[in-house]
Formats: sequence, C-alpha cells, structure tokens
Amino acid sequence: MTQVFNFSAGPAVLPKEVLQQAASEMLDWNGSGMSVMEMSHRGPEFISIYKQAEADLRELLAVPPNYKILFMQGGGLGQNAIIPMNLVGRVQGRANAPAVIDFVHTGSWSGKSIKEAARYAQVKVAASSQAERFTRVPAPDTWKLTEGAAYLHVCTNETIDGVEYNFVPRALGDVPVVADMSSHILSRPIDVSQYGVIFAGAQKNIGPAGLTLVIVREDLLDHALAICPSAFHWKNVAEHESMFNTPPTYAIYIAGLVFAHLKRQGGVAAMEARNIEKARLLYEALDRDDFYSNRVEHSCRSRMNIPFYLRDESLNEQFLAGAKARGLLQLKGHKSVGGMRASIYNAMPIEGVQALVDYLNEFAGR
Amino acid sequence: MTQVFNFSAGPAVLPKEVLQQAASEMLDWNGSGMSVMEMSHRGPEFISIYKQAEADLRELLAVPPNYKILFMQGGGLGQNAIIPMNLVGRVQGRANAPAVIDFVHTGSWSGKSIKEAARYAQVKVAASSQAERFTRVPAPDTWKLTEGAAYLHVCTNETIDGVEYNFVPRALGDVPVVADMSSHILSRPIDVSQYGVIFAGAQKNIGPAGLTLVIVREDLLDHALAICPSAFHWKNVAEHESMFNTPPTYAIYIAGLVFAHLKRQGGVAAMEARNIEKARLLYEALDRDDFYSNRVEHSCRSRMNIPFYLRDESLNEQFLAGAKARGLLQLKGHKSVGGMRASIYNAMPIEGVQALVDYLNEFAGR
Repeated sequence: MTQVFNFSAGPAVLPKEVLQQAASEMLDWNGSGMSVMEMSHRGPEFISIYKQAEADLRELLAVPPNYKILFMQGGGLGQNAIIPMNLVGRVQGRANAPAVIDFVHTGSWSGKSIKEAARYAQVKVAASSQAERFTRVPAPDTWKLTEGAAYLHVCTNETIDGVEYNFVPRALGDVPVVADMSSHILSRPIDVSQYGVIFAGAQKNIGPAGLTLVIVREDLLDHALAICPSAFHWKNVAEHESMFNTPPTYAIYIAGLVFAHLKRQGGVAAMEARNIEKARLLYEALDRDDFYSNRVEHSCRSRMNIPFYLRDESLNEQFLAGAKARGLLQLKGHKSVGGMRASIYNAMPIEGVQALVDYLNEFAGR
Repeated sequence: MTQVFNFSAGPAVLPKEVLQQAASEMLDWNGSGMSVMEMSHRGPEFISIYKQAEADLRELLAVPPNYKILFMQGGGLGQNAIIPMNLVGRVQGRANAPAVIDFVHTGSWSGKSIKEAARYAQVKVAASSQAERFTRVPAPDTWKLTEGAAYLHVCTNETIDGVEYNFVPRALGDVPVVADMSSHILSRPIDVSQYGVIFAGAQKNIGPAGLTLVIVREDLLDHALAICPSAFHWKNVAEHESMFNTPPTYAIYIAGLVFAHLKRQGGVAAMEARNIEKARLLYEALDRDDFYSNRVEHSCRSRMNIPFYLRDESLNEQFLAGAKARGLLQLKGHKSVGGMRASIYNAMPIEGVQALVDYLNEFAGR
C-alpha cells in the first residue's frame, strides 16, 4: 500500500483503526454471521449499534437531555431545504408579515443556504463579508437581526473559504440559532445549549457520505410546514429514533466506530489541542514569507480547512504534481476559489501536516 | 463464523464475494492508498467507480439512452414526496382542476405513497385490493384511470404483503407510469421503456441502505414544483451526474460491486430463473397441507417476499426460536400483518431456501 496523506475536504480521511475494524467485521459482526450492511435496522444487533453510536456522540458533545440526535440523509444541501420546511411554521400566523429567516453570509456554504431557504420564506442577510471576499466573520455587534425571525442561520466553519467562528453566535430573544457545523463538528468542544439546531454532513469529521447528523432542541421538532416530506420531518424522525425511514445503517455503524475512537483519544477537548497544533504548524509555514498566502483574517482562520495560494499561480500544476508524487493528495482548491486547500480534519495525523509543511518549504526553496 | 441464512426484508443479505472484496479493499482501493469512503466524490478514483456502476446497471436493466440513472438519498419514503414534487408541475396550469395523481393500492407501500402524495396534489385510487386484504393485484381492465393525471403510481412488488405484478401496468395517453420496484428490481428483466420513472431503495437487491436508485425518462426531469428542494430536483441531480449533493459514495461502490457480481452470474435473466426456482420450492412447502398458509392469489405471489402464517399461531414463538437455532434469521413477519415472512432476494442462495424448506417440513412434523 502506498503511504498517502489525503487532504480532501470531504469525503475525507478516516482513522486507520476504524477502517481496520470495519474490514475485520465486514463478513461477521460480533459473531452474528452477518455484515452490518445485511442487518435489519429493526433487529437487536443493529439497534445495539445505533444506541451505542447515539450515546457516544451525546457524551462526546455533552448534548443536553432536551436535545434529540437525528441520523438523517440528504447532506448539508438537503438540510438547507429541510430546515426551513421544519422551522418556518414556528412563526407563521404570528404576524401578518411573511416569515423571515436571518442569515450571516460568510462564504460559499452560507450562500447556498440562503439561496435554498428563499423557496420557503423571506430571507434577510443580517451580516455579510462578501465585500471582503469572505475573509472574516462579521463582528456580531454589526449584525442586523430581525425580531421574531423563524431562526438565525450561521455556518460556523466555511469549508471552501476557510473561515471559522471564534465566538458563539447569538440571536434575538427566543429566535433559535441554527448552525451548519459540517466541517468542524467534533473538532472542538461546543456548548450545544446555545443552539436550537446543529447539523452536519458526516463526510468530514464523522464518517461516510450519505449520513447527516441533526441535533435539535425538543421544542423545535414540531413546526413543520405541510409540504415537509414525512421522511424529513424532524418530529417523525425523532419519534422513531431515526428509523421512520430505513436509516443509512452502515454509515451509522462507521460513525459509531469513529465516535468510539474519539473517546479513546480523549474526546473533543483532546482533539482540539491537536487541531490547534496542526493548524499552527501549517499556517506558520504559509505565513513565513510571501511565497504562499492565506487571505483570511488571523482571528477567523479555520483549523480544519486551510485554503492558500501560490504567489506565482503559474506554478500551481507543478506544485500539485510534486505533492502527489510525495503522496500528498487532494490539495487542489475548490473550483469556485482556485488555488490550494488543505483540509486537516481530526483524522489527519500530525505526521501528514508535517509532511505537507516539509513539502511547502522545499517547493518554496527554503 | 456461524453459518446463517438471513431472510430479512431489508437491509438484506448481500453476495458473499461482494463483502469479501469490500473487506479486502477497505484500507486501500486499487493501490490508491485510500479507502473508497475517504475519496473525494470529484476525484478520478471515485468517478471511475461511479461510471462503472452506472454503466453496469444500464447494461443489466437495458436502460434506454433517453433515461437517466440517478443515485439519490432518502429511500422509498423520501421518493414518495420527491416524486410528486418533481412531477406535479407537469400538469399544473393545463386545466383549472387541481393536479391529480392516480394510484393502484395493492398493499402497505402503495398505501404509504398515497398518503404522502396527498401533500402535493389530489390523489385518486384507480384500483384497490384493500377489501381483499391485499391478496392480489386488481385486474388492469378494472382500473379507473384519470385522463391528464400527473402520473400513475404503482408498487410492482409489495414487500410487506408479498404481492407482485405479473403484467406491465399501463396508464392513459401520455400519463407516465411511476413504479416503486424497491423490493424486486434486478430480480427479473423489465422493459424500462414502459415506465416514466422507476425507483428503488437499495437495501434489498442493490446494496446498502441510504442509497436510492431513480431511473427517469429525460422528458420528465424538469417539471418540479418551486418547493422541491434543489438536492432532490431530478434535473439538478441528472445534470450533475448525481453529484449536485455529495452522494453516498460508499453505498454506490457496494452497489457497483453487486452489479458486477450480477453480470458475472449471467445478468437478470439468469437471476430470474433462479428466483423462480427458489420461490417454487418455498411456496410448494407452504402449500403442501394447511399447516402453513400464504393468502396471496397464486398469479400475484411475490418471488421475493413470501409472507406466511402458521395454522396454529400460538406456535409462532416456538417456530421462530427453532429457526434461529438453525441459523435461519429474521423470519418474523412485519408487525402490521403478523405471521412470518421470508425474503429471498437475489443474494439468498438456493441452499438457504432449501434449509428453510427442510425446517418447515420438520416443524410441521412431515
């Protein structure tokens, strides 16, 4: 096997011991004679896998008892529609005005969320860093929030733009905060109680693509519009413990292995310490001179997704080819912003970051 | 490992050689140094997996070139909403009357589809076997079809009720036929050109739960209602080759291994011959005397899902315990209908059916 380090933004690298366990159990889970893929989602074997995954995640993120953990399908893009379909009903009929959803626009993903939500309500951009090309999170005292909004939507880590919140976003009064944490969930402790809804596509820090995690405060479960598909109605999903629809069982199993692995590693506080160190190493190499640049304000730089540019962009292809030859994969930036991007999620070992730093220095002729 | 035969209705048994290949490639697909789970969906490795799976499925089902194959998420229950959201627009504005969707009600799954579609249009039941407790498919010459309907929805194999169509359903004029083939797709050849849309949850004859297959005639791709989420808008999905949203990559990979396996087995015609023989063996044992019964009209009996009852239902628990002791798993019937059910999909070897038949005979004291 080639030794590679995979900097993909997602689907992304998984812990090697998780993959080893999955391989060893593929034909026979725990003496059952069945692969996890072959198990009825209602059988005792899979129920035990599901319950353990749910409990471990609840422990890792210290999810309060008045929050439900939902394992859904459809990814972040799916939730961009599923969220308004579930929450707009919260304020409909309260006033004559149409329901409003507030957004903070900090990059590509919050932008997609705004566009999608406009199918279901009036969207208002409370703050935006678009004029600064998404190089920071607008300071919270500048946000123009709407009283009585259905909810406030934020993306606390922008995967494409490499911008991460360094504060807890707050809404007005009882307006719930909905946070897209797809690309940094489980990378640091969070105070779940500050949010109404937290959601995340699994394919970065959780497990395989095709699983979407949603953490919802119980009072927000039952405000869906009549047009909300029953398979995506949070109350249905919660009442059936994510088995209203057949859930993506194998993806839940892999996520459970990742959760157990994280617990053995010391939990999210330990992951945060490693992630701070990994990010420090990489940004330091990028900042050393002007051969490379990362344009994000230092206080808002993501620890997970680190976009960067070569001063001389005519060297891009040569840079990528040299990286690939060293087993440093998937470093090309997203097509919408160009340049390079290194995603260094929980499962990226510090050796991978060090190998990239060594290559950055070598390529720059340092 | 215990030798077991798993009669689960889904998620269900998979071919052993598929699981063996998946296990052996888990940490390193084809020398890439990556698990398929870790691959960017936009990278050349996964694109090659996706293209091969799509091409093999197209070959297996002889899908005509004017049909798109979509790999989606949300399962059959999700499609129950996604289909009307994509097709009701086809007839809106054509007349003053509200859009109508026709249904043939043959069991639990078509029943769920009717209930869900009522969120988006007027639903009409063109024919129903509910009065006969879903023991047959109503004869097509009795169907009361609606001219100008948005579409006609049928479930060509009812997983819970064990009823399978033995004819090709037809609608009026240019009304497209939408067929839920979740539990018998790939078990027999079909003439795709007779349908507007074919859909199937993967977790029976295709692969892992969390993947939904949709085959759509091209002229039906672009009639979505404004409320249709962009991630579930067929035209978006088709234009982006199922990568508008991050697809369930690992599930697609496993499905691809199943498709390749089916081709090596001789394709769906060869599977049909085996499935006919497997079903014959099992129904013969059930029909031998009145110790067991299957209530479905012979001409409509499913080859895939075979519900049956013990004459003396007080023996149910004893029957199930004895089966389990012999490694014959998941034979309990669906809670809504009780009794027993044996699902004998493509991947159930004839040895498994023979083992069940032997046990049926033994338990009946024959």
